[in-house]
Amino acid sequence: MSTPSPQRARSAAAKQQRERAILDAARALGADRSVREVTLTDIAAAVGMHKSAMLRYFETREQIFLALTAEGWEDWSGALRARLSEFTDVTDVTEVADRDRGAIAAVIAQSLVARPFFCDLLAQAPLNLERNVSLESVYAFKTVVLGEVAAVAVELCRLLAITERAAVDVIATATSMAGALLQMAAPGTRLRTLYETHPELAHALVDIEPQLTRILTALLNGLPSTER
Amino acid sequence: MSTPSPQRARSAAAKQQRERAILDAARALGADRSVREVTLTDIAAAVGMHKSAMLRYFETREQIFLALTAEGWEDWSGALRARLSEFTDVTDVTEVADRDRGAIAAVIAQSLVARPFFCDLLAQAPLNLERNVSLESVYAFKTVVLGEVAAVAVELCRLLAITERAAVDVIATATSMAGALLQMAAPGTRLRTLYETHPELAHALVDIEPQLTRILTALLNGLPSTER
Repeated sequence: MSTPSPQRARSAAAKQQRERAILDAARALGADRSVREVTLTDIAAAVGMHKSAMLRYFETREQIFLALTAEGWEDWSGALRARLSEFTDVTDVTEVADRDRGAIAAVIAQSLVARPFFCDLLAQAPLNLERNVSLESVYAFKTVVLGEVAAVAVELCRLLAITERAAVDVIATATSMAGALLQMAAPGTRLRTLYETHPELAHALVDIEPQLTRILTALLNGLPSTER
Repeated sequence: MSTPSPQRARSAAAKQQRERAILDAARALGADRSVREVTLTDIAAAVGMHKSAMLRYFETREQIFLALTAEGWEDWSGALRARLSEFTDVTDVTEVADRDRGAIAAVIAQSLVARPFFCDLLAQAPLNLERNVSLESVYAFKTVVLGEVAAVAVELCRLLAITERAAVDVIATATSMAGALLQMAAPGTRLRTLYETHPELAHALVDIEPQLTRILTALLNGLPSTER
């Protein structure tokens, strides 16, 4: 392996720093408004670059947000696994599987609801983000996601005594429903105001955390345990 | 109430006919490719109108697809309720609730998987369609959806002996997951080819019907029955 020249190393570090600044600007804008409302021009303005210069670092606005989605998976997975590790003190696995499914469902729901920007990205990724980037970017993204899904699945299998396939179903449901419910809830939008001001549309008002908790509780309670 | 003049009636009928032609053209294009790939220009070309003339009938391309989503809800709800009515022959409600939850989950999953264009619209509606139409259009759309959700919920409550809130959770999960899984499966796209040709991405390959059936079976099995 050749050692990079000091100049190459400096420029690589500068490139990385610039990429980080772009990602941070996109994150701040996306979290403040919503992902759909942030254009490449907005990000360029926030980071103080010309749009054409920014495109030397990222292919499209979708690649920027897809990179943030991958970071979101790493952050969520780490935080959730830390919370789930608190459930390990009981020694009888079958007992844990029976007793704590509702509590585990609540922890999963909370971990997602606490990350609204990630939930926004979770909904945007398969519909909009993955469709406007190179296959190389999709490959890199999927590799991160599959790694984090596998890591969370290990914890769920251990705690709930369910199969890996069932654990993957839980993760797919939790993340997809968190994304979908956030879009339906449409917090801070004129849609939300419409639902709130028309009693006949009251059923269109989505309250994300209790609904996600109910759905995940039923899902976990209905999964067959491999221990039984 | 005033009777419309023959001329007014003729022009109303002509307007309705034109709207129908636009909707049918958009449906054919959306079902053939996918909703995201159909532009207003494509629809105008298919129906043989100028884009500006078409905008006298619909505000935006999103309003056209939102109207098709409402029609999709009516079609799906009617078909599903017809299938669910076949489960009514058994007289003991508690017995049905215990025995047929897996079969009912399979019927719900099948009814959605058989309608890929509707599943595409289900994912697009909250993210993209509802955000680019007038509040009047959202109101009309939500009114249709809430009506169909309520109608399906009545059947589910009767068959499964669950609360209305639980039935609404089931419908939200079924429709949102059908939409999300279709987007993740990405049939017929270069993404799908990527997953199929890279064994290390095998877990990214989504097989919609079995996964949706498993998730809904666990969900229904885990819902508390009001009869117990």
